[in-house]
Amino acid sequence: MNDSTIVTDSVKRFKWVGTRPIRPDGVPKVTGRALYGADLKLPGMLYGKILRSPHAHARIKSIDISAAEALPGVKSVMTANDLPQQKFDYIGPERVAVNFWHVTRNIMAREKALYEGHAIAAVAAISASIADHAASLIKVEYEVLPHVIDVDEAMADDAPLLFEDMITRGIDPAPTKPSNISKRLEFSMGDIEAGFQQADVVIEKAFKTAAVHQAYIEPHACVAKYEADGQCEIWSSSQGHFQMRALTAQIIGAKLGDLRVTPAEIGGGFGGKTVTYLEPIAATLSKKAGAPVRLQMTREDVFRASGPTSGASMWVKIGVKKDGTIVAADGIYKFQAGAFPGSPVMNGCLCAYAPYTIPNQRAVGFDVVSNRPKAAAYRAPGSPISAFAVESVLDMCAKAIGMDPLDLRHKNACRIGTPTLAGPKHAHAGYAETLEALMNHPAYKVKLGPNQGRGVASGYWFNGGGESSATLQVNADGTVLVATGSPDIGGSRASMAIMAAETLGIDYSQVRAIVADTGSIGYTHVTGGSRVTFATGTAVVNASKTVVQEMRKRAALIWGVEEDAVIWDDGVAKPANAGDNKTLSFREIAAKAAATGGPITASHGVNAGGQAPGFASQFCDVEVDPETGRVTILRFVAAQDVGRAIHPAYVEGQIQGGVVQGIGWALNEEYIYNAKGLLDNPGFLDYRCPVASDLPMIDAVMVEVPNPTHPYGAKGVGEVGICPPMAAIANAIAMATGKRMTELPMSPPRLLAALSD
Amino acid sequence: MNDSTIVTDSVKRFKWVGTRPIRPDGVPKVTGRALYGADLKLPGMLYGKILRSPHAHARIKSIDISAAEALPGVKSVMTANDLPQQKFDYIGPERVAVNFWHVTRNIMAREKALYEGHAIAAVAAISASIADHAASLIKVEYEVLPHVIDVDEAMADDAPLLFEDMITRGIDPAPTKPSNISKRLEFSMGDIEAGFQQADVVIEKAFKTAAVHQAYIEPHACVAKYEADGQCEIWSSSQGHFQMRALTAQIIGAKLGDLRVTPAEIGGGFGGKTVTYLEPIAATLSKKAGAPVRLQMTREDVFRASGPTSGASMWVKIGVKKDGTIVAADGIYKFQAGAFPGSPVMNGCLCAYAPYTIPNQRAVGFDVVSNRPKAAAYRAPGSPISAFAVESVLDMCAKAIGMDPLDLRHKNACRIGTPTLAGPKHAHAGYAETLEALMNHPAYKVKLGPNQGRGVASGYWFNGGGESSATLQVNADGTVLVATGSPDIGGSRASMAIMAAETLGIDYSQVRAIVADTGSIGYTHVTGGSRVTFATGTAVVNASKTVVQEMRKRAALIWGVEEDAVIWDDGVAKPANAGDNKTLSFREIAAKAAATGGPITASHGVNAGGQAPGFASQFCDVEVDPETGRVTILRFVAAQDVGRAIHPAYVEGQIQGGVVQGIGWALNEEYIYNAKGLLDNPGFLDYRCPVASDLPMIDAVMVEVPNPTHPYGAKGVGEVGICPPMAAIANAIAMATGKRMTELPMSPPRLLAALSD
Repeated sequence: MNDSTIVTDSVKRFKWVGTRPIRPDGVPKVTGRALYGADLKLPGMLYGKILRSPHAHARIKSIDISAAEALPGVKSVMTANDLPQQKFDYIGPERVAVNFWHVTRNIMAREKALYEGHAIAAVAAISASIADHAASLIKVEYEVLPHVIDVDEAMADDAPLLFEDMITRGIDPAPTKPSNISKRLEFSMGDIEAGFQQADVVIEKAFKTAAVHQAYIEPHACVAKYEADGQCEIWSSSQGHFQMRALTAQIIGAKLGDLRVTPAEIGGGFGGKTVTYLEPIAATLSKKAGAPVRLQMTREDVFRASGPTSGASMWVKIGVKKDGTIVAADGIYKFQAGAFPGSPVMNGCLCAYAPYTIPNQRAVGFDVVSNRPKAAAYRAPGSPISAFAVESVLDMCAKAIGMDPLDLRHKNACRIGTPTLAGPKHAHAGYAETLEALMNHPAYKVKLGPNQGRGVASGYWFNGGGESSATLQVNADGTVLVATGSPDIGGSRASMAIMAAETLGIDYSQVRAIVADTGSIGYTHVTGGSRVTFATGTAVVNASKTVVQEMRKRAALIWGVEEDAVIWDDGVAKPANAGDNKTLSFREIAAKAAATGGPITASHGVNAGGQAPGFASQFCDVEVDPETGRVTILRFVAAQDVGRAIHPAYVEGQIQGGVVQGIGWALNEEYIYNAKGLLDNPGFLDYRCPVASDLPMIDAVMVEVPNPTHPYGAKGVGEVGICPPMAAIANAIAMATGKRMTELPMSPPRLLAALSD
Repeated sequence: MNDSTIVTDSVKRFKWVGTRPIRPDGVPKVTGRALYGADLKLPGMLYGKILRSPHAHARIKSIDISAAEALPGVKSVMTANDLPQQKFDYIGPERVAVNFWHVTRNIMAREKALYEGHAIAAVAAISASIADHAASLIKVEYEVLPHVIDVDEAMADDAPLLFEDMITRGIDPAPTKPSNISKRLEFSMGDIEAGFQQADVVIEKAFKTAAVHQAYIEPHACVAKYEADGQCEIWSSSQGHFQMRALTAQIIGAKLGDLRVTPAEIGGGFGGKTVTYLEPIAATLSKKAGAPVRLQMTREDVFRASGPTSGASMWVKIGVKKDGTIVAADGIYKFQAGAFPGSPVMNGCLCAYAPYTIPNQRAVGFDVVSNRPKAAAYRAPGSPISAFAVESVLDMCAKAIGMDPLDLRHKNACRIGTPTLAGPKHAHAGYAETLEALMNHPAYKVKLGPNQGRGVASGYWFNGGGESSATLQVNADGTVLVATGSPDIGGSRASMAIMAAETLGIDYSQVRAIVADTGSIGYTHVTGGSRVTFATGTAVVNASKTVVQEMRKRAALIWGVEEDAVIWDDGVAKPANAGDNKTLSFREIAAKAAATGGPITASHGVNAGGQAPGFASQFCDVEVDPETGRVTILRFVAAQDVGRAIHPAYVEGQIQGGVVQGIGWALNEEYIYNAKGLLDNPGFLDYRCPVASDLPMIDAVMVEVPNPTHPYGAKGVGEVGICPPMAAIANAIAMATGKRMTELPMSPPRLLAALSD
């Protein structure tokens, strides 16, 4: 091998890719020493408190902050009036295409409070108790308005309107009457009516899913320190400190260069920490107070005011021939957006049928506002919701024609070249392989007992690419520092170190990967969309190649030969002339950096395209207690096309984590609103996430179909695992009980009601 | 201009270089919000305390830490036994060529305590008061030994020996008897005896200077957080977080990649914060305790245990002809090293005669240990000491031949091509120009009154280059982040931003410069040796040029033309074809980065050679109160060759700061030891630094002789200003009183004694 090219074919034996070393953040996290968003304390730091709306829907007639301002120990009080106006525009600044007119109102209410917990005003004081007291002294005059929570009710003609002038986009001609529907989407291919004509069996069904929260352990927290000259430093836990910087800059009216954001460790995000809530408020309080301000949410704040994923109301119709050929699929997908437009309904539409070859398809989506917290991204946002409906109906189709549900899916599995509703044809394989992995899994043949059932489902996720940056620094002792701008939510520091070690030809233990602040590394998009190992990994590999090139240059300088006369072989420089057996190791060259030109450093930015989508297929066995309606998961097998697993243990962890969250979504998690539109269960006691004792060992089966657009064949693995579980469990329950559950969660009371129906 | 080359000739009008914008760290520092070494507080952080020797010289017979360990609230206790052994070796790891056998013993005593305040053991506890109490419970059995403080006494045959086996290096044949002289140096050129034969006047004189402290406002402080897997994060105030990382790694036995050091703002350093004292102790306490540890020095600790510059004892002899030609110069320079070898005596020898063309020269130096804290770098280390002696004798020569002291210096001023004791011939001009600036200064003609005198002196400093790194990030709004590894002690963030703005062709307000941690930026040597504007500045300019190249590439992509068809003119891309008048601004191209390939990022490392030395010439007028011996500085004019001033206000500040410290050194500052070898004045009340009311306005005259080896002509400006004041003031006192003062400080009691002699 006479250059630094990476051989990605499967013949090449990797030294580090595919191994399972300990992650760099493992020990600090396990020993409790990792620093999260709320762990920083600065001299003179103030404690912020946000006053939140007690009403689901209310006009704000006046806010009187004078009593709060007068309280000794209070250093600043703010309302939305302290934030600049924003244009109503769906095209934001580059890289952040959101409507800032909405975003600023979600961060702090202006004309109306649109959900319980909506931020109304904020204070900063010398202690948390004074801040609490001051917030209680703010007098808000509300005119309480009728509210609406449910998506179908919000679409009704006589529904209370959140935005009195909102006209649905995407309908031609545009409606004249305002509504809570912010937009209508339609995607189709083929001839949907003709398609159903060819079917031997047509099944249609309506479904509802509940809004569920990402349920990260760490509530949102930040510290902001705004200087009188406009510079502002922020320490914060987020899934993307660059996106947070961009949003905060726009909301407070600052230059990007004046904000410096240092990422804290993140205690879970799952999409929910791609959203900015606190930082613009903390920065504004700090600006007004002239001192650093810490803001953090309580658990109740997290539930009431940060985004769950959408609940939805759907209708799906699928037609199959007797031989199992799917000839047509249709669906209507109505997604809750929460209080501001912007649900993942487009993803729901585009992922719904994506694993399949279906000549005639249609998906119609509605984005609907209601008096709930604004929906946020949650693991493969949108896809699990439509998958619940589509994969349930597919199960019914399989049963109707007497075909094994894996066989039905395999017969119609998308292949390279299959067209998709999103436009481009499938360019990557992987789906059929996941089905085959299940078919061949011994557990699929295990016999079931009474009240037991087996359910199958699949899922699809685009996986993202986009902009990432990396820098590499070579130390004099041959150790290497890899800095990226990607907050590490799933072990990405380990995978970055693995890819750097592999590319450089050095030991994993010699590489340290860190997450750098916005002042020290190039722009990097959020850790989300399962994009990091792919895009940031590509930047790391490219920067590593630059270092290899530089090492050859330095070796050539030491030997006094031309650079071309030096080859790089497994971390060692060698003369191209094989007869000459002198060598220089990575460490030896690193030790001579000062004498050969100075520090060895490389930086690289990419806008990575060609990311391959993720496919997951899963089956589970359940047992239903007919007396209580409680569902026990007996076993769960989750197969996923992972491209190539850079660090298999963390890939398995992603698969298992997705399944666990899907199980919670399927069986227990929901937002319970009372008649006043107030959330009755804003805490982990009443909002029921699965705990270890609820779960079987989840058997993660990695199917490796290397992604040719990544130097080591990696593709995103973090999200698609959450798509199948809801349908898989519903299908298993249907087999166990004969009852088709169409509404989530399939909690004991609801299942018991269905059983006694 | 059709590429990104910088025109450095004086015809080019710069837009930003030479202007005086506000420094980025100005507002946070003035408002008290800047974060220094002691400002970080981490969850679970412990407070460290170092037990220090109460004796100037004592054998440590035993240390019993059991009572301290048993005290509730104490989490770890350490002694030197917790640090690995170090080889006795003057060649350390690359980039840190020090003797770690000595360094580890200075950080924590092993066999002997060698000075009052020498660290003996350390504790970490849950509160500072518990730590204090615990330290007092450590039982140390000392055998008190005779001590020696003065450099001449330390060289005496019967002096108590600090190292019983130390044989002076640099003498051939090597002496057989151990001594406190660690090495002897000799530099010479020409024929020293023959030179003096040609002289009409020969003057020789002995001099003594006191050890003086850098007197930074901020005592040393750090926080270390050591993880069970060997990773360690350190937050610390220093002049070089990379050097501190290297030293700490070696002292505690860690890999460079496992240490991550984040630089705090620094409250003064002046060379003294290039030394590592606390960090290896804090890291070890943290390792043993499993929790973060903060360590900070008290002011007393700073005086007793951190390095002042050497005191010295010198003898200088100079021969001149009647016409002013200097024909020979000889000198013996005996420098205190403190308790471990390593004074700046070599610098003292090499700078002594460097401003002059002297055919016959000799400088003999001695590095001498005694029971004082180890000497540390202090602004142009070594040079001001020998300058005091040489420039005093030159003044006597001028008087003896009846020549103006500026004329004498100008007649013998070094030129390009003048040989130096250091070896290379002078390659840069600048000295004569500083003398001419004084000759032409109106204040030089002001008539003096009774008891008043005028003194002239010059100084020389090498100025450093070496390794530095920089990265640039372009934000989507056209703002730019410049990250370097150089802690900012004199406004370097401003000068980096100026150079980047100038090179990129954008507004200074669009550029933010930051100091990045060791994980995020390439190796960068200490902020010292007046190297930063030169070396780090070169890295910034080179990285900026890479960005300009990238901007042209992106513009070419947007226009669909070849890169060569795009020129870069003052921050704007234009077609090379002048007829085509479309343009793309920096900001417009930045906004399209995502669509044209991703983040725009550049990193650059240099090992900058060719730094030009600094020359300073100064005169001052003093008035001596014959009744008290108090010296009042009436005026002070300081001319300095500054290459080209990137930010003139901060260059002036450096010149003024150097003069102020020189005034303190000349008139008041000294370490006062009692008979037991204990320091009697370890505080700012008794250690008398000049305050504003002691000082006149110091007239800083910048002489700009652009340095061709820097892209904008900059050279180091931070140090040489401290070299002339002691001799200038002594010369002025001699003129005012007729008394030649040969010992520093020339404090009221000492001057009064001389006057009444």
